[in-house]
Amino acid sequence: MNGELVDLQAAMAAAIETSHEAWGRTSPNPPVGCVVLDADGVMVGAGPTEPPGGPHAEVIALRAAGERARGGTAVVTLEPCAHTGRTPPCTEALIEAGVARVVYSVEDPNPKAAGGAAVLTEAGIAVESGLLATQAKRGPLRAWLHSMRTGRPHVTWKFASTVDGRVAAADGTSRWISGEESRAEVHELRRHMDAIMVGLGTVATDDPQLTARAADGSLADRQPLRVIVGRGEIPPGARVLDTDAETLHLRTNDPDEVLDELGKCGVVDVLLEGGPRLAGAFVRAGAVHRVLAYIAPKLLGDGSSPLVDTGMSSITQALSLDVEEVTMSGSDVRISAVPAGTGGTSTAPREA
Amino acid sequence: MNGELVDLQAAMAAAIETSHEAWGRTSPNPPVGCVVLDADGVMVGAGPTEPPGGPHAEVIALRAAGERARGGTAVVTLEPCAHTGRTPPCTEALIEAGVARVVYSVEDPNPKAAGGAAVLTEAGIAVESGLLATQAKRGPLRAWLHSMRTGRPHVTWKFASTVDGRVAAADGTSRWISGEESRAEVHELRRHMDAIMVGLGTVATDDPQLTARAADGSLADRQPLRVIVGRGEIPPGARVLDTDAETLHLRTNDPDEVLDELGKCGVVDVLLEGGPRLAGAFVRAGAVHRVLAYIAPKLLGDGSSPLVDTGMSSITQALSLDVEEVTMSGSDVRISAVPAGTGGTSTAPREA
Ligand SMILES: NC(=O)c1ccc[n+]([C@@H]2O[C@H](COP(=O)([O-])OP(=O)(O)OC[C@H]3O[C@@H](n4cnc5c(N)ncnc54)[C@H](OP(=O)(O)O)[C@@H]3O)[C@@H](O)[C@H]2O)c1
Ligand SMILES: NC(=O)c1ccc[n+]([C@@H]2O[C@H](COP(=O)([O-])OP(=O)(O)OC[C@H]3O[C@@H](n4cnc5c(N)ncnc54)[C@H](OP(=O)(O)O)[C@@H]3O)[C@@H](O)[C@H]2O)c1
Repeated sequence: MNGELVDLQAAMAAAIETSHEAWGRTSPNPPVGCVVLDADGVMVGAGPTEPPGGPHAEVIALRAAGERARGGTAVVTLEPCAHTGRTPPCTEALIEAGVARVVYSVEDPNPKAAGGAAVLTEAGIAVESGLLATQAKRGPLRAWLHSMRTGRPHVTWKFASTVDGRVAAADGTSRWISGEESRAEVHELRRHMDAIMVGLGTVATDDPQLTARAADGSLADRQPLRVIVGRGEIPPGARVLDTDAETLHLRTNDPDEVLDELGKCGVVDVLLEGGPRLAGAFVRAGAVHRVLAYIAPKLLGDGSSPLVDTGMSSITQALSLDVEEVTMSGSDVRISAVPAGTGGTSTAPREA
Repeated sequence: MNGELVDLQAAMAAAIETSHEAWGRTSPNPPVGCVVLDADGVMVGAGPTEPPGGPHAEVIALRAAGERARGGTAVVTLEPCAHTGRTPPCTEALIEAGVARVVYSVEDPNPKAAGGAAVLTEAGIAVESGLLATQAKRGPLRAWLHSMRTGRPHVTWKFASTVDGRVAAADGTSRWISGEESRAEVHELRRHMDAIMVGLGTVATDDPQLTARAADGSLADRQPLRVIVGRGEIPPGARVLDTDAETLHLRTNDPDEVLDELGKCGVVDVLLEGGPRLAGAFVRAGAVHRVLAYIAPKLLGDGSSPLVDTGMSSITQALSLDVEEVTMSGSDVRISAVPAGTGGTSTAPREA
């Protein structure tokens, strides 16, 4: 799209898209994306935030735009920061570049960095906010926004089940419930995560490797921390003990302790991949912030359920979710949902 | 749309829509819909098949069109019949009305009635087939086509579960797992069915009434046969024993026996509403022809699963399905699927 005339909405969508490159690489900074349009609305620069110490998205995009930024518009997924950390404030770079307008999607909840909009307005720059905010909040910024708000890591619980709600057959087999596309999608998701977590039961039954891999089995350029939860021992020879990624064994059954420990390690974005008992404990503790279900077009009729021991014994105690998105992942139905009232408005898929 | 210029595809969509009015009212005849376009392509008539003894869809639509049918096109969901049953053949009515073209969606698999296309062609009428055939086969004709092909009733297994695959909480409560829209949709579906079937366990636990009702609780104009399966007794005072609809108690555990018995009663279209054990027996017997899952945005973590005792103990034995359609029903995700290879191509929902 670089070099093309784009409207603001398309520019923000491109900024969100660009921010995916930063996702998982910027902690403790937010993974931001920025697009710069010249005075005529032609896209002349784009960029994601670089790893800590490196320039923020605005600076990368402004550099690419050069002189063409003057009189133009900077479109950013997050309110530009006004404070000096390891890098100078982004507001300064925007003012120096001479942009006439800044459009950002999500307000910065970080009191230290906030106030960027005010600084820009004072400098005579037109400022607009809120564009595609729902999408931006569900994008790479999601976990960072959560950790800013709560001071704790964000947990996505992911599972793959049959239509009749089974995550493993009666004989314990669960490879493969979901299809190839879903598995590839999960490996891509793992690549962006700070940590992948499972319970000792899953390690014992499935002996998963818990790395991010390409379709050919090769390791991704970035590997999340593998977190194994449970008081028992990891079986010697388990694949999570190999050298392909780091592994942390947390000898506890308490989700709060787990999150505290992970927060101390700088973990912001956690993928909880089961099993049912560990997931049940996290749901019971109110520590699941997003549910990602891959529902495969299969019937089993026996075997394990995705979630156990949540302590909810009556239908009135069920945890209500808001469905964010329903899409197909190959032939699997992929449902993304968040605890009711904690997130986006629910959007319906159109008729197939 | 009557009086409007429509293209053939829109006319066939309207014919399918019209056939819904006939759905559940025409057994043993097929629920057909017909739309007549005049020579200019303006829609001048439409109609569904009337109950047995009454005129077929083509005749209703041609009557509405009158002289304007001459030189026009008849658009029908099923190949027009060429045989005299309780009514004269539809081919005759089409020839007499002077239509220049007949476009139908699905071929008539009934050897007695087939051959309509050949008769029309011989009379100098242009004949086209296959338009929107996937939709038409999934519409009101579905069960009739199945029973023509197999000689047995068609079974749709419907259930409502939480995202984590629970159809009832640990204390047995299951009201209400699915939302208002889904429940209204199921009542609308029941209205078209010849029979609604459950096992004795569901009668004992839930005491359902199993009637088709409007949102205000009033009974629909048409009530399917209530079928209760199991060797035990229906508890005295159970609501399925009230006088709002007929009830048949089949004292067997054998799905084949159930289908034979229902076939003898002229039942073509059956809605199996659980519970898990009866559904498991039907899946095991290969007697579920469509799965309709309402997945509610809730987590439970304990309780019953939709399906038990299917005899499939390993993931490789799972029954593969083809997803036909994924839609939202209020805030529930509605998945319609058929055993792999038995039905339509799978269609993906677009991004939400
Ligand atoms: N399809 C899928 O998406 C998927 C994903 C994962 C697993 N699975 C299936 O799930 C099955 C394994 O189930 P599982 O429940 O044994 O697995 P799990 O939840 O991974 O492991 C349970 C173990 O986790 C530890 N744990 C940590 N915190 C806990 C807490 N608060 N409550 C209870 N236990 C806690 C316990 O170990 P200590 O007693 O040593 O403390 C417990 O034995 C396998 O069949 C596997 O295939 C399926
Ligand atoms: N959410 C939903 O969509 C939904 C729908 C329905 C039920 N449910 C829940 O399901 C639970 C009831 O489960 P359930 O399994 O007891 O219900 P069920 O399948 O309705 O009933 C089981 C009974 O059906 C009879 N049966 C007939 N053929 C059978 C066969 N081939 N194999 C086994 N039994 C056969 C047996 O009676 P005999 O032994 O007398 O022969 C058996 O006891 C309740 O908690 C209810 O709320 C949920």
